[in-house]
Formats: sequence, structure tokens, C-alpha cells
Amino acid sequence: MKKTATLILSFLTGLSAFSQTDSAIIKSLFNEALTNGKSYQNLEYLCKKIGGRLAGSPQAQQAVEWTFKAMKEAGADTVYLQECMVPHWVRGEKEIAKVITSNAKSFKTVNICALGGSIATPVEGITAGVVEAKGIDDLKKLGKENIQGKIVFFNEPMDPTFIGTFHAYGKAVMQRWAGAKEAAKYGAVGVVVRSMTLAHDENPHTGVMSYNDSITKIPACAISTNGADWLSNYIKTDKEAKFYFKMNCQTLPEEKSYNVIAEIYGSSKKDQIITVGGHLDAWDNGEGAHDDGAGIVQSIEVIRMYKALGLKPKCTIRAVAFMNEENGGRGGKKYAEQAKLKNEKHIAAIESDAGGFTPRGFSSTMSEQQKNQLKSWRKLLEPYGLHDFEHNGGGADIEPLNETLGTPILELMPDSQRYFDYHHTAIDTFEAVNKRELELGGASMAALIWLISENGL
Amino acid sequence: MKKTATLILSFLTGLSAFSQTDSAIIKSLFNEALTNGKSYQNLEYLCKKIGGRLAGSPQAQQAVEWTFKAMKEAGADTVYLQECMVPHWVRGEKEIAKVITSNAKSFKTVNICALGGSIATPVEGITAGVVEAKGIDDLKKLGKENIQGKIVFFNEPMDPTFIGTFHAYGKAVMQRWAGAKEAAKYGAVGVVVRSMTLAHDENPHTGVMSYNDSITKIPACAISTNGADWLSNYIKTDKEAKFYFKMNCQTLPEEKSYNVIAEIYGSSKKDQIITVGGHLDAWDNGEGAHDDGAGIVQSIEVIRMYKALGLKPKCTIRAVAFMNEENGGRGGKKYAEQAKLKNEKHIAAIESDAGGFTPRGFSSTMSEQQKNQLKSWRKLLEPYGLHDFEHNGGGADIEPLNETLGTPILELMPDSQRYFDYHHTAIDTFEAVNKRELELGGASMAALIWLISENGL
Repeated sequence: MKKTATLILSFLTGLSAFSQTDSAIIKSLFNEALTNGKSYQNLEYLCKKIGGRLAGSPQAQQAVEWTFKAMKEAGADTVYLQECMVPHWVRGEKEIAKVITSNAKSFKTVNICALGGSIATPVEGITAGVVEAKGIDDLKKLGKENIQGKIVFFNEPMDPTFIGTFHAYGKAVMQRWAGAKEAAKYGAVGVVVRSMTLAHDENPHTGVMSYNDSITKIPACAISTNGADWLSNYIKTDKEAKFYFKMNCQTLPEEKSYNVIAEIYGSSKKDQIITVGGHLDAWDNGEGAHDDGAGIVQSIEVIRMYKALGLKPKCTIRAVAFMNEENGGRGGKKYAEQAKLKNEKHIAAIESDAGGFTPRGFSSTMSEQQKNQLKSWRKLLEPYGLHDFEHNGGGADIEPLNETLGTPILELMPDSQRYFDYHHTAIDTFEAVNKRELELGGASMAALIWLISENGL
Repeated sequence: MKKTATLILSFLTGLSAFSQTDSAIIKSLFNEALTNGKSYQNLEYLCKKIGGRLAGSPQAQQAVEWTFKAMKEAGADTVYLQECMVPHWVRGEKEIAKVITSNAKSFKTVNICALGGSIATPVEGITAGVVEAKGIDDLKKLGKENIQGKIVFFNEPMDPTFIGTFHAYGKAVMQRWAGAKEAAKYGAVGVVVRSMTLAHDENPHTGVMSYNDSITKIPACAISTNGADWLSNYIKTDKEAKFYFKMNCQTLPEEKSYNVIAEIYGSSKKDQIITVGGHLDAWDNGEGAHDDGAGIVQSIEVIRMYKALGLKPKCTIRAVAFMNEENGGRGGKKYAEQAKLKNEKHIAAIESDAGGFTPRGFSSTMSEQQKNQLKSWRKLLEPYGLHDFEHNGGGADIEPLNETLGTPILELMPDSQRYFDYHHTAIDTFEAVNKRELELGGASMAALIWLISENGL
């Protein structure tokens, strides 16, 4: 298209019911993000110089140290660490897998990766027949007679007809989370799970899984969607084909780690805290750019922008880089526990953990009255593409705050179409993030924090 | 983020005022697009097998033939060509450019490309001093004494603070469109224009420019934004540096070409036409994926989906692949001219020419009453992420229909953040398009067409 713009936004119309100051400050925050933003270069550092940073890893410790420094540089009034113990799972040498034809004359290599928390296979790997299940409910139908001694191949695809991809994820992810312990009840010796994505490609998607101490632990991996489609077709014709896989992961003793916390002191209500955060840990197989480097650098950016613009919010703003969201949630739990212990007053918490894509609104878990207050700001936020305030839900790291103290929680809702293309894979890299989309997310959180701080929730 | 989905869409609530049939049909259209969609594979063909297809080129003719076939395969009741004459500009051998230091001891190569419609440089190229202008208004300030015999370097950046990037484009693009003829008035010998993008990279962005037959024609090229930033800095210190460029483009005689048109006959109001389209031509330097392969394959997809679902719209739906939007708009003009000549009744026209990104709404040029009818469908469309119906504007190819017949026109409004990263460059390729985002755009147009066809506008 060559034509000159016909889509002219009229920023400051129809806002008569609101403070001109609020609308002007929101505009200044977006201008600052889009003109002088530092989140993109911060993300580059976090992704390229540190990379994957699963809790307990040396990279996670580097990320803690870097975040501390970046929060200082952003101009926070104070930056400190909050200790928590975290699980320490390591992948070890790269996994291998292949499908062996029934006549044992040939094989096809397929792309897998261990699910987080899985045990290793024996050193010689596991070789067994494959039985396909479309989700956990299928196990019962298949029964022990079809599963005993075999590898269960969970192959329920994410449903493409949901417009919000998180819904499709939520519907399919149980086979990843509980597949191993459920299949083990029927005598399975291993589990291969279709990757949680709507894309058709060669990338296996890791993610956390769980065991039950009273059930035999069997190793579990994810297979790429292309691999899953191929395998599903192949075993229809070669029913005696075998699946071989070898994984070298292990769970080490727990490690000491940290949430990293920065504050801007409130000007008149210093004891009233608004938390904004993301999680600092990221799966080891990628760079953790969308999940959740984006949320980290956007939260640091909130601090930087308030300071750069000289804004003096009434309430205290706390940017928190939570540790261990991916495989334990220890950081979020510790944060809520400490808030309770110190009798802190948390008036709201916002998380960004759905990727660095163009923001479309905020989901929330709060009272009807609070939700109405949120929606009353719609006219101020719509010029920035924030239309959607209807959905329920807050971020995983701030849910404990809601559960413990009843704090109203919100989550930035970016466009979700591309998120699961990258989620928990080797391609969740800095290059997958668009600078402006990332910047708009940070500005959106900064704007909402201003409205909450000045007008209450 | 690992948590199960908390963002659950409730598709069919709150729609009591609307026909259940309308909402169910809209759902079926989105399901069809996201489950059995063909637009993505069609786009792959158009991009990878045909590629750039500027009007008058052999590739444009291939695209006409392929589109004819694809519309047939989509199940259209009829497919036909509409002849129009088009300009035929060719780039020739790749352009070269360098900045030569004032001592002539060294030079730096910079990435340029000819603007569409530009004349060539002499075979030996042009070498001249450089004077920087921040937009056309600067020419007057600089005056003939600073411009005569020099190359004018137009370096007004797109303004990053506009949320909608088309607004920023509209504000900056005049230097590309009119820079050469305006600078020539002051005796400039050539023009170098900062690429129309908010990205900072090495890709020059082409696009159409214009001459005035009564003013000396001088060659005009685009320089990448990185190149522009470098050049701007360099000439601050080395004021006598020279810019050299060589371009080999030429304008050949006009060629015969075509709009490609497919119809589904209306069941009860066959004479009432709803047009849906995009433009088939694309700049020669890329694959024309977002601009506007997306609009073409989405329009074909509308036909396919209606047929696949057995929908019988009251009105006639016409999918149009317009020719020559980029450098002449002849296809759009011919379409409106023929519509008038045949006394056709056009009740609405919709264009997709803003990229294959997640749709966020529709802009429109229509009466207040029609706009209110459009907004009355909001509740039916919001579950699909379509929130924005406020902005003005229709597509460039259907504007003549609005001007000639007063037809209400609309344009699909996708998220605009990434559009100008790719626009008119070598990286506007198939890989830059996300399958689901593309599919949602086609479904959005199909849904709106259904509402217009069944309920009137």
C-alpha cells in the first residue's frame, strides 16, 4: 500500500471525564518508551550474553546479577535481593530419538527434548513399542493390555479454533504435565508428548512435568509437531515399529537463588505497593526472549521511564524479577510469604508473562468493583490499542499474592497468535521480538500503574 | 509461562440482540479458516514461485494466470479478467552507491534502491556533494545556493510516537513521493531519501515517486535507515564528502494487464455486489508477501470458505485481485469505471492492504448511518479480536469506487507495528507472515461480508 495514512488516531478526544494530567502522562510514557526505550537493548543483553537461565543454573545467577545492575541503572530508589531456594534440574547432553522400523532395517531420527523435571533414560536409552493416545483420557480406553511395556505417545493437538491461543494451550497441556505419572499407572516405560504449539515445524517444546512419588517415574520428552505427525502416520502402517530415546537429564540438590526487586518510593502513600513483574528464569534450550525476558525488561523499563520523566507516583512501585516460575514457582511464593510476614499493603500487582507482542488489554482477578474501575479507564487506554479488559486471570508469579493477601492481580494481554510458535523452544530468541511491540507492552503497564497509583483501584 | 489458560473466551454470550445464525456462521468461518485454511499455502506459491510482480512484468502476468486458476479452484461461480493498461517501469541492474570522503582516499558503500518511477542516472553514475533536508519544507530554508548541483538527502524519520504506524508513514512519505521534483526546482541533481520505516536496519525501501513534466527530472533512490543515520553523521564532520550512485532503471511502454475477478452469485440479491480485494502487483525487490500477497490470498479464501461451508449469501460476493496499486492504481480506476459504465449496484467494498497481521478492526469511509450499522455488529466481532471500528479510510484500490459511485468502503485493519519493517523491501517474504495471523484476516473479512450481505449496510 502506498497511500498516505488514512488511519489517523485522535489521541485526546473524548476524554473530558478524565484528568487531562492522566491522559498527558500516559502519552508521555508511550512517547518515552517509543523514543528512548531501553527495553530492547536490555533484552538483547539478557538473551545474547546470558541466554537460557533455568533456576539453579549459573546463567540464572548471572541474570540475577545483571538485573540488579540494570535496575540500579534504571534509577530505582532501592534495589535488593529476596532469597529463595529453587529446584535445580539439568538437561545434560542433548537428547536423541529415533523410530526403528519393525524389520529393524532402517530408522528415522526425530527431534525431541526432555520435559523439565523428567528423569533420564538408562544410559543405553529406552527402546519400546509405541502406543498413541489423544490425551490422558485415552489411557483408560487403551488399558493396561495396550500400554504395559510401551512408550505412550500423547498426540492431542492444540485446538486451532480458539482465537486466544492460551485457551488451546490450557486444554492440551495436561498431557505434558501429568502424562508420565498417568501413563506409568498402566505400565508405560516412557512418554513422548506432542509439542504444545499450533505451528507445524521441527522444534520440540519443553516445559514442566510432574511425578507422583507413589508411582513409578518414567522419562518424558516432547516431540516436534512435524515429528508427531510423522510418527502418528507411520505407526498406523508399521504397528510393530519401535521408539528409541536417550535422555541425560537429572535433578540436582536445590540451590539458593533470588527474586530481584527495585522500588520507586511512593510520594504520599509509600506503604501502598504496586508490583510489576515478570520471571527471570527461562528454559535452558532457548534464550527466553518472549518467555519471559520481555516481562523482565518491560518491568525494568517501567522504573526507568518514571525516573526519566520525573514522575512522582503516590504509591510505591515495585518491579520484581521473579525466580523459578517455569519449574517451581518458588519466587512468587516467597514474595507473597514475605509480603504477608511484613504485613505489607499491596494494592495491585501486574505481570507480563505472555510474550513481547503488541498489547491488547489486561486480564485480571479482582472484585467486580475493581474491575469496573479498570474498565472506567478504557477511554484513556484505547488510543494505545488496549481494548480488552474482560478476561479473567493474573500472572503465575503474582497468583500467590492474590491467594495470600487478596491483592487484585492483572496480566498484560499481548496478541497471542505467535506466542506458542516460540514458547519453550530454541527459537525463543531475541530476533523473535519486535522492538515496538515490546516497548508498547512496557508503556501499557507503566500507564496502568499510573492510573492505579493516582486514582486507586 | 506454564500456567493453564486463564483467558477463556466466551464466544456466544451477550449476543441476544443478534441472530444466532449470524453468530454461528461467523464462528464457522473462523473455524474453517483456522482448520482448513488455504491462504497460507497460496501465499507460499505466490511469493516463492512468482515473487515480486510489478505491473507490466512477466511475473505480474504469471500472477494473473495463477490467480485466475486459484479462484477457480476456490469454487467461484465465475472467474474473469478485466483488462487495463499499466505503466511498465523496470529497475534494471542492481543499484550501487557510495560515500566518498573529501580527500577521495576512501569510500563507504551504502545500501540504496531506486524509487519506483525514477529515471536512471547517466551510465557513469552521478557524483555530487550532499545536502541534508529534514523533509520538503527544508528546501526553501536551504535555498538554491545550498542545493544547486548537489544531491538532496531527505532524512526526515518516521515519527515513532504515533501508535498507528500508518500515521507516521503518512507524515513522512511526501519526501519520497515529491522529493525529486521539489529538489529539482532548486537545481538538485539527484535525491536520496531515508527509507520509510521505523526499523533500524540495512534494507532500502522502494516505493513510488513522481515527476512533473515541466520540471527537470532527476534520479531518486531510497537509502536504508542505518545508511541514512551514518550519512547524516558523516557529512557533519566531512562537509565536502561526495555521494555517488548509479541506477539503471527505465520506463518502458505501457503494457496490457488485468484485474482478476471471481464471483459467488447472490442467492436473492444477485445484482447487489460486495467487493473484497487486495492488489496483485508487488514491488520487484521482494516477494510482496504482506504487500499485498496477503490481501490477495485472503480474498480468494473468502470465496473458498463460503463454498466449502455451503453458505448462500443474499448478495453477490466479488473477490478482486487489483492490478497496479503500487505505481499507478490503474486496476482500481478501471474497476470503478466499468462499474459505472455497467450501472452496477455496489453496496460495499472491503480491501486488505495493510499486511497479513492479526486483525484489530475495520476502518471505513461511509455515512454516519452506515458507520453505526457497522458498530452495531461489534459484539459479534469482538470475540475474534475485532475491536476497532472508529477510524476513517478504505483501501487505495476501492477509493475510486467510493469516489465514482459513493460506495461505502472499508479496509481491514491489522496490527500495524511490524508492517513498515517489511514494506517495499527484499524482506517482505513469505517467512515474514504468520499463518494464523493471515488466516484471521481472511476470516474477519468473510464474517463482515456475511453481516453486510444478510443485514444490509
